Amino acid sequence: MRTDLERFFNPRAIAIIGASQDFITISGQPLKHLQSHGYKGKLYPVNPRYEEVAGVKCYRSLTDVPDTPDLVLILVNASRVADILRECGAKDVPYVIIFSSGFSEVGGGGVDLQQKLAQIAREHDIGVIGPNCQGMINVADSVFAGFGSVFSSDYEPGPVSMVSQSGGFGFSVMNLSSKDGGLAFRQMVTTGNEIGVSTLDFIEYFIRDPKTEIIAGYVEGLKDAGRLIDVGEKAMAAGKPILMWKVGNTEQGQRAAASHTANLGGAMALYRAAFKQTGIIQVDDIQDVVDYGHAFLSRRLPRGNRLAIITISGGAGILMTDECVAGGMELAQLAPETLDKLRKFIPSFGSLLNPVDVTAAIFNDLTLINRTMQAIIDDPGVDCVAMINASLQGDLATTIAAEIVAVAKKTDKPVFLAWSARDVLAQEAYALLDEARIPHYKSPVRCGRAMVAVSWYAQAKRRNAAQRNEKPLTIEKPSARQALAGRTADIAEHEAKRILAEYGIPVTQESLATTAGEAVTIARRIGYPVAIKVQSPDISHKTEAKAVKLGIADDAALQAAYDDVLANARAYKADARIEGVLIQEMVKGGIEAILGVTNDPLFGPAVMFGLGGIFAEVLKDVSFRLAPVTPAVAREMIAEIKGYPVLAGVRGKPAADIAALADAIVRVSALAIDLKDHLAELDINPLFVMEKGRGVKAADALIKPK
Amino acid sequence: MRTDLERFFNPRAIAIIGASQDFITISGQPLKHLQSHGYKGKLYPVNPRYEEVAGVKCYRSLTDVPDTPDLVLILVNASRVADILRECGAKDVPYVIIFSSGFSEVGGGGVDLQQKLAQIAREHDIGVIGPNCQGMINVADSVFAGFGSVFSSDYEPGPVSMVSQSGGFGFSVMNLSSKDGGLAFRQMVTTGNEIGVSTLDFIEYFIRDPKTEIIAGYVEGLKDAGRLIDVGEKAMAAGKPILMWKVGNTEQGQRAAASHTANLGGAMALYRAAFKQTGIIQVDDIQDVVDYGHAFLSRRLPRGNRLAIITISGGAGILMTDECVAGGMELAQLAPETLDKLRKFIPSFGSLLNPVDVTAAIFNDLTLINRTMQAIIDDPGVDCVAMINASLQGDLATTIAAEIVAVAKKTDKPVFLAWSARDVLAQEAYALLDEARIPHYKSPVRCGRAMVAVSWYAQAKRRNAAQRNEKPLTIEKPSARQALAGRTADIAEHEAKRILAEYGIPVTQESLATTAGEAVTIARRIGYPVAIKVQSPDISHKTEAKAVKLGIADDAALQAAYDDVLANARAYKADARIEGVLIQEMVKGGIEAILGVTNDPLFGPAVMFGLGGIFAEVLKDVSFRLAPVTPAVAREMIAEIKGYPVLAGVRGKPAADIAALADAIVRVSALAIDLKDHLAELDINPLFVMEKGRGVKAADALIKPK
Repeated sequence: MRTDLERFFNPRAIAIIGASQDFITISGQPLKHLQSHGYKGKLYPVNPRYEEVAGVKCYRSLTDVPDTPDLVLILVNASRVADILRECGAKDVPYVIIFSSGFSEVGGGGVDLQQKLAQIAREHDIGVIGPNCQGMINVADSVFAGFGSVFSSDYEPGPVSMVSQSGGFGFSVMNLSSKDGGLAFRQMVTTGNEIGVSTLDFIEYFIRDPKTEIIAGYVEGLKDAGRLIDVGEKAMAAGKPILMWKVGNTEQGQRAAASHTANLGGAMALYRAAFKQTGIIQVDDIQDVVDYGHAFLSRRLPRGNRLAIITISGGAGILMTDECVAGGMELAQLAPETLDKLRKFIPSFGSLLNPVDVTAAIFNDLTLINRTMQAIIDDPGVDCVAMINASLQGDLATTIAAEIVAVAKKTDKPVFLAWSARDVLAQEAYALLDEARIPHYKSPVRCGRAMVAVSWYAQAKRRNAAQRNEKPLTIEKPSARQALAGRTADIAEHEAKRILAEYGIPVTQESLATTAGEAVTIARRIGYPVAIKVQSPDISHKTEAKAVKLGIADDAALQAAYDDVLANARAYKADARIEGVLIQEMVKGGIEAILGVTNDPLFGPAVMFGLGGIFAEVLKDVSFRLAPVTPAVAREMIAEIKGYPVLAGVRGKPAADIAALADAIVRVSALAIDLKDHLAELDINPLFVMEKGRGVKAADALIKPK
Repeated sequence: MRTDLERFFNPRAIAIIGASQDFITISGQPLKHLQSHGYKGKLYPVNPRYEEVAGVKCYRSLTDVPDTPDLVLILVNASRVADILRECGAKDVPYVIIFSSGFSEVGGGGVDLQQKLAQIAREHDIGVIGPNCQGMINVADSVFAGFGSVFSSDYEPGPVSMVSQSGGFGFSVMNLSSKDGGLAFRQMVTTGNEIGVSTLDFIEYFIRDPKTEIIAGYVEGLKDAGRLIDVGEKAMAAGKPILMWKVGNTEQGQRAAASHTANLGGAMALYRAAFKQTGIIQVDDIQDVVDYGHAFLSRRLPRGNRLAIITISGGAGILMTDECVAGGMELAQLAPETLDKLRKFIPSFGSLLNPVDVTAAIFNDLTLINRTMQAIIDDPGVDCVAMINASLQGDLATTIAAEIVAVAKKTDKPVFLAWSARDVLAQEAYALLDEARIPHYKSPVRCGRAMVAVSWYAQAKRRNAAQRNEKPLTIEKPSARQALAGRTADIAEHEAKRILAEYGIPVTQESLATTAGEAVTIARRIGYPVAIKVQSPDISHKTEAKAVKLGIADDAALQAAYDDVLANARAYKADARIEGVLIQEMVKGGIEAILGVTNDPLFGPAVMFGLGGIFAEVLKDVSFRLAPVTPAVAREMIAEIKGYPVLAGVRGKPAADIAALADAIVRVSALAIDLKDHLAELDINPLFVMEKGRGVKAADALIKPK
């Protein structure tokens, strides 16, 4: 399939299949919009009912068109689309937008119809956009190929390119951002059901496009989600931030799965993991795109998270602090030299502590602002500066803006402004800031959010740069691959743990017994107390089946327990295949954790970590990353769960062996990659994390083959 | 102190102490603003340096002013304010705004100075606003008594009144909300350090003011926070929603306290509790005030949380769903009759499931929208309707708006619109909606947030109405009050539990032993196994002191343990006063909870509940309510913690005795009120919650007297 997309955004000729003379209707709009915005290429309306449409010669069929258009717009009923697509193929048309609805979104026959389209597109190597979409606007080159109210306006070209799976919402974003938000768009394309060219194909194009500085996306789901990490990393390397909606978060439709890992995940957890791993910035609303967009257009990234706030309104300073600290930034501790400087001119009733409050005294002394700003920018402990100007307006505002621009020019630290004056009352001031690419926001909260976004992105970038030097662990175990190949039933504890051991993950000492006598021999070798567990591929929840007994103290107790658990297992499931009874050491002490893999059909293998029991099951306090997971990322996964203090040592309890835990996570990641063709899910539950220096131990495990 | 405030907002005469001829400066601005906005009363500038200011006769001192102004504005240096305030007192001036800074906000001498002002105000019964504030605007009556850029504009009067502890930010809110947000303000007052008339005094005034429909507030801290519940309930009874910022959330400065309850709380938890209990709506940013304000001005409250969404853009529908479901609303299940109606006209490629997607087909058939809307409003399972119109604009927009207004008029269910057309392109449509008080928002997310706010408020209102019939439990125990009176040291477990028992809170069976022999006698009576704990007012953390042993099985073990714990206690703190060793039943089974009281100096007694151990300590998963707590509220407290599933019964485990737990919470609330003059903190930790029907049992307790 074609994905270079140059001819898609800049078609030399466009055919419009189903063009209508009623320019209000969906099929009437595209030709009119193309014309009215001054499209420079050739236009071929196709409709057997007309001789001409909008003054342009109209053709009976695509075959009659005396040219191979770079782009064909299909606006006919769903049932007729396949035939037309074949005609496009016959003519060697590179790109087609299918606007028509009535495909997979309606289920049933629509799904079949859509599959047929995809097949035709593949056969003829056609780059299909849609179906069920609203088309494309290339503002920069005046190509308005689609329909909707937004197509009626003219736009200034800008640095943002966007791809959206929703037509209506996507074009609203473009319209409001460029017109009311002052953030101009370069290209905007909607992809609908996305049977051909995908969101990620477009993002890759935007990464290559030299004039796109910022990429935006609206995503309901990616069929090629496995490429997300790769594309995200390319964007980061190109210095182009991606602002993305991922919607459908409250969807209940997670597939039911046997393992905790799969139950705790769901697509959203994996999207979040991918975003985190590649610095893709999640947005919630249109205002975020505008606000973050302006922030990134400043082209300044902070070196760290330390923020200094200068304010003329104490209250606004507190609001911004709340927002920024909640978002992971910290307030810079100003150096004594900086404080000495400030003390000289800030009024005694101001505050030298960060947020630095110069108070409304600036009404009496305008130079207060820029002197304060300069002193703070010069402080080496400050990575980012925010200034809050309340509602300053008019000439006063212009003077202050000019001074801020002058000070900001001499530094590469990001400078942000929260400035609440209305546009009409601070026009000159805002124009000066815009020209200098100094982002400014009407509220301290919006300013704070934008700084958090930039700071988070800069941190992700630093982290990824550091991790590039960390080679992920690779372990190849053909024996393990072989053991899983062709299996369909769950792989029970004992065998699952032998596989874990192959990858260097410590497991409990244990052996399988098939008689009570054998059990005793094993228990004596391991040393009492022991745990015993019935092993059966047909009993995944051994505890539920009462097929587990813990803390067995001696031979007599073991013999009784042995018979017991077998009887219980048979009572639970009469026809269960029983492999034997596992005799296992009792792990003393340690914190229960859960470590797992879900091999997502779209994303591929992902690793999950959390604390055991209630933490994972009730609170869903777990972290996910797409494999491979490097040691640094493993430590991030450990530190980001809310229960982390339990591992770090809480209330005088000793710290757990976090290094060994990180190593186990990395090894599970290596296992997940090595076994990705055969493994569907892995649960290590519990994994005991012992005191620092004493390692970890997998006490139970379950593998579900693919 | 005067708090009727009628003369404050409508002063017949205003004196301005320190009025300047330089109208740019802070002291020059108020007179100019009062004049330019057409203030109708008398003006008396006071400044010994001038004969006149802005064409008005100027006086040497307030004493020389031949009148008693209703309002005096003080704009002089901090050091001179006390004298002037005394002059105001001598003249019987009812209200004074002190703009000057340099008081408690600078610490040190400023604090003393401020205390002096407060004392003078009290002596002379002056209603002081400020110090360190920016004044007041009464838009409705053209009184612009203050300074700042915002004072230079004219405003249309509207239904919102606001009080703000921040001048700069508060006036920004008013300015942006009225001008850019179309939400006009009636009165706006800033209170600064608030030594006299408080935020809550102003809110009470706004509740009484017949023309205020919506109240907004910006709060850093309330010195009279104990009134918050009362004021909040009055506002709710008057049908006036309060939209409130509470800032300083990330403040680290929580007081160190011995009990968990006090550590887990902090002021923010109590503010949140008060807001929840009285339906005060927390806002994060200016846009929230605008968006929620318009929503409440519709004067429609939903009867339940069931939302139906009609959309022409599938994507926008998903976004709105995400927002609303996350905010506690649910998508209505449409009735079969409704679906039958819809099936008749919604295109086959649309969606009948809620969100109902009528698709871009409305471009071809305009009547689709209002027919769909009517069918859905008629559905008795729908409490609230949202329609998403993407970017529809122009004449099309006007036609559709008119139909929506017609349909909405026939119902009292709230109707909300997400409509992204820019103002200039849908002016007529929006005017029609505004006139009919149908709230509309540029993005589905903002629309969703506003619906969530209204829905949350309506729910709080229903809940409060239901709770009004529930009389809170009152228990009076003079003996317990007497036991606490005059105490200063911590009250150790045994005595604390006897006090709990007086209020009907079940405690473990136990007795205090002072010899090992006595211990054995007691243990035999209670029955082994037992727990033993050293009792000392000097050892609050018994476990840390190793002065606790659990699960003691027989006489011999008890005798050894008895000596052990005493030795450990002495090793921990040589001079600790030892009351004896508590011999206590071991509680079998049950879920560990924590239940406590913090008697806040501002809010008064608050009750806290959470699950024990890690849940409370690490995850801070607790709920707070201000006492008294009714049974229904106690059940809310239990259900709102994240760990609730543990109590409800998770993974096949039986449900806990939630009724008994709720009863214990209610009794702790009654205790907190009965003992509020003597008790500072109470911790019941752990409180064991047994299986359903088996009650609760306090296994340890600590009381800190006031």
